[in-house]
Amino acid sequence: MKQKKFILSESEIPTQWYNIQADMPNKPLPPLNPQTRQPLGWEDLAHIFPTECCKQELNTTDRFIDIPEPVLEKYKFYRSTPLVRAYELEKALDTPAHIYFKNESTNPLGSHKVNSALAQCYYAKQEGTTNVTTETGAGQWGAALSYAARVFGLEAAVYQVKISMLQKPYRSSIMRTFGATVEGSPSMSTRAGKDIITKNPMHMGSLGTAISEAVELAITTPNCKYTLGSVLNHVALHQSIIGLEAEKQMEKAGEYPDTVIACFGGGSNFGGLAFPFMRHNILDGKRTEFIAAEPDSCPKLTRGRFEYDFGDEAGLTPLLPMYTLGHDFRPANIHAGGLRYHGAGMIVSQLIKDGLMHGVDIPQLETFEAGILFARTEGIIPAPESSHAIAATIREALKCKETGEEKVILFNLSGHGLIDMTAYDQYINGDLVNYHVSDEEIANNHFGVK
Amino acid sequence: MKQKKFILSESEIPTQWYNIQADMPNKPLPPLNPQTRQPLGWEDLAHIFPTECCKQELNTTDRFIDIPEPVLEKYKFYRSTPLVRAYELEKALDTPAHIYFKNESTNPLGSHKVNSALAQCYYAKQEGTTNVTTETGAGQWGAALSYAARVFGLEAAVYQVKISMLQKPYRSSIMRTFGATVEGSPSMSTRAGKDIITKNPMHMGSLGTAISEAVELAITTPNCKYTLGSVLNHVALHQSIIGLEAEKQMEKAGEYPDTVIACFGGGSNFGGLAFPFMRHNILDGKRTEFIAAEPDSCPKLTRGRFEYDFGDEAGLTPLLPMYTLGHDFRPANIHAGGLRYHGAGMIVSQLIKDGLMHGVDIPQLETFEAGILFARTEGIIPAPESSHAIAATIREALKCKETGEEKVILFNLSGHGLIDMTAYDQYINGDLVNYHVSDEEIANNHFGVK
Repeated sequence: MKQKKFILSESEIPTQWYNIQADMPNKPLPPLNPQTRQPLGWEDLAHIFPTECCKQELNTTDRFIDIPEPVLEKYKFYRSTPLVRAYELEKALDTPAHIYFKNESTNPLGSHKVNSALAQCYYAKQEGTTNVTTETGAGQWGAALSYAARVFGLEAAVYQVKISMLQKPYRSSIMRTFGATVEGSPSMSTRAGKDIITKNPMHMGSLGTAISEAVELAITTPNCKYTLGSVLNHVALHQSIIGLEAEKQMEKAGEYPDTVIACFGGGSNFGGLAFPFMRHNILDGKRTEFIAAEPDSCPKLTRGRFEYDFGDEAGLTPLLPMYTLGHDFRPANIHAGGLRYHGAGMIVSQLIKDGLMHGVDIPQLETFEAGILFARTEGIIPAPESSHAIAATIREALKCKETGEEKVILFNLSGHGLIDMTAYDQYINGDLVNYHVSDEEIANNHFGVK
Repeated sequence: MKQKKFILSESEIPTQWYNIQADMPNKPLPPLNPQTRQPLGWEDLAHIFPTECCKQELNTTDRFIDIPEPVLEKYKFYRSTPLVRAYELEKALDTPAHIYFKNESTNPLGSHKVNSALAQCYYAKQEGTTNVTTETGAGQWGAALSYAARVFGLEAAVYQVKISMLQKPYRSSIMRTFGATVEGSPSMSTRAGKDIITKNPMHMGSLGTAISEAVELAITTPNCKYTLGSVLNHVALHQSIIGLEAEKQMEKAGEYPDTVIACFGGGSNFGGLAFPFMRHNILDGKRTEFIAAEPDSCPKLTRGRFEYDFGDEAGLTPLLPMYTLGHDFRPANIHAGGLRYHGAGMIVSQLIKDGLMHGVDIPQLETFEAGILFARTEGIIPAPESSHAIAATIREALKCKETGEEKVILFNLSGHGLIDMTAYDQYINGDLVNYHVSDEEIANNHFGVK
């Protein structure tokens, strides 16, 4: 019988994260102070983020960084996650490709997000923080952060994008079950939120608006730090556990990926899976192709500009060098709430510029078609975000069918869709549509300081 | 660092199920024909159930039965499931007890139910069946059956208890995503359903009513077989994979359970975990205590009668020898929909009579308190059904705290509660209550043929 699943024993779980910044041919440009346009040091970020995270953010020298023992201990609650050969999907596609997926949906929070939530809360606790705050879209990050805060004895306040809160109410319930406070964003509880609502009372929120509110709360609350679920370099660092495990597991499977695919919102699950493999392209001459699958309604990788822009809608963050649609770009209300973000992380932006990876745009209906095929073959109902990776994988596998190539494709199943069933209902009932974004919608936005 | 999780490699997954009927000191009494009161042979059941299941149902001689290769192959999608040491829960309870749980919530369907769904659908397909039908309460079984039917190319029709459908709508969406037809029960689509609705238009359903409808559909539809998620002997057989794995995993942990606990509806997850360990009580002089945790609103194990009774409300099934509250007992609308059943399986009923195990009754609020403590310590939001096992475990662990005993307690986490978040919301908001059943409510019911 063919082996379906590859798992690591507790002792095989990596004990260090991989920091791709050390190996990048061109380092990411530094974040800038919006007023002075001077590069920021870690000290300039430490009033917002836990100090250790700020140091990791700008660390371009250490290739490997030790995972603190208490974080590693919590990783062992749910790691390693399985690497799975998708035999049934291959059969349904009649493709010669070998399709593997890293199943980050098996942990009780439902997605990869907990890998960084645990690290950030640990560092926050270490420096005497009592409260953490964050934004969340679909709620995968918010759920993970709420759990991690509980683990390390912190109070958590989460701003959840309003449209996502309405689309998937169970995720707020999960956060509350772990003891967190949850507020729909834009809310009336912050100046940033009030300003956004005043301008547009019907604003349904985006990750950009929710970040503004959470950052404001962190800055104005004593002993409170802000945590972010994606975009930043230290988040990709923490998520590298995914790819480091997958590397060992692919070795057990006796294969090496020709193509690595993940969905793309800010880059956390993409970087997590891709970067450990990408280092072998940079250092060892491997020629793996890296594909980031984004919604065609939020096409920053393929149609954004590489600019210094704010990470949030209100302009409270430093200026970040990224592919962006403009910080006031308002993404359509697609169900993949985790991908509704205007900018790409700094590392990924540099890697795209340097031709080490590329993006593809997937329409919403194609992602649901892919998600349902995946559910009916592999038995797992994927998160709408992850279905972008599945759709991109199916495209590649069907190319292989045409060419006859036996490519090894590895994608990240970043989370399950059990809390997103309303979206599946709507798709099955024929009530979902595609939202293609026009050039004008992008051109009218603001990039950086006005 | 202490080992948290014990997993088996694919090659260590058991390839046979364990049939406790072969080892029972007193075999279960046979099912009877309600008209003639004569014992039924497997041929008499085969118009309802897949033939192989009927044979397994009455097999009192073979201790081990081979798992068919195609079923084993699908088991490897999600098995082995982890055995986990609940260090954080132990710490929160300040107990010297060693608490382990078998985590059956890690598969993509969310509970142990898929273990038997795959087997039943495989056997149905083997004999040329095209359609399967079933009942479901909370929907864990219905979801598993819908997936398994898809795997083996069968059409599935599921009758879901109406109150559960309203309480957790996402479960019906999951079934539909796998391609099944879902109907709320009692429905107007069967004679049994119509009769129940005519008598009581506001009837919110129970497993007993849904079974009546599904059995009627199976009997009146060509090439259609009925499948059941619990109660019957062959279901407990298929679920024995849980305990057989746990046995190997406890060995890896270097311990053996003093106490084995599972929640109890019809007996599928209880039997699955308990029976493989119970055989060592019967054969090898072990003295493990076996505790079945039922809702105090549905107390058949502790306050039911041992009688021949129908398995369904309308009286379409054979007469089964069981501890029962009467086949027209109407359980309160608790959130643990999977435990709202009037009778206990035949094997368990005999084992209770013989003093090999016993039941405990847990009020609804205690189960939610336990569930939230478990979520906040071990990170997993449990199904309301499984929270009964957790509550019983906590009671035992607190006894150990008083006596100082270092008992090894093993319980089954039969499923996660991610689709049950409405129930957690209600608990957190203070809107849930206990439903203690009165003696009169039991006395007024019907047992067996009127």
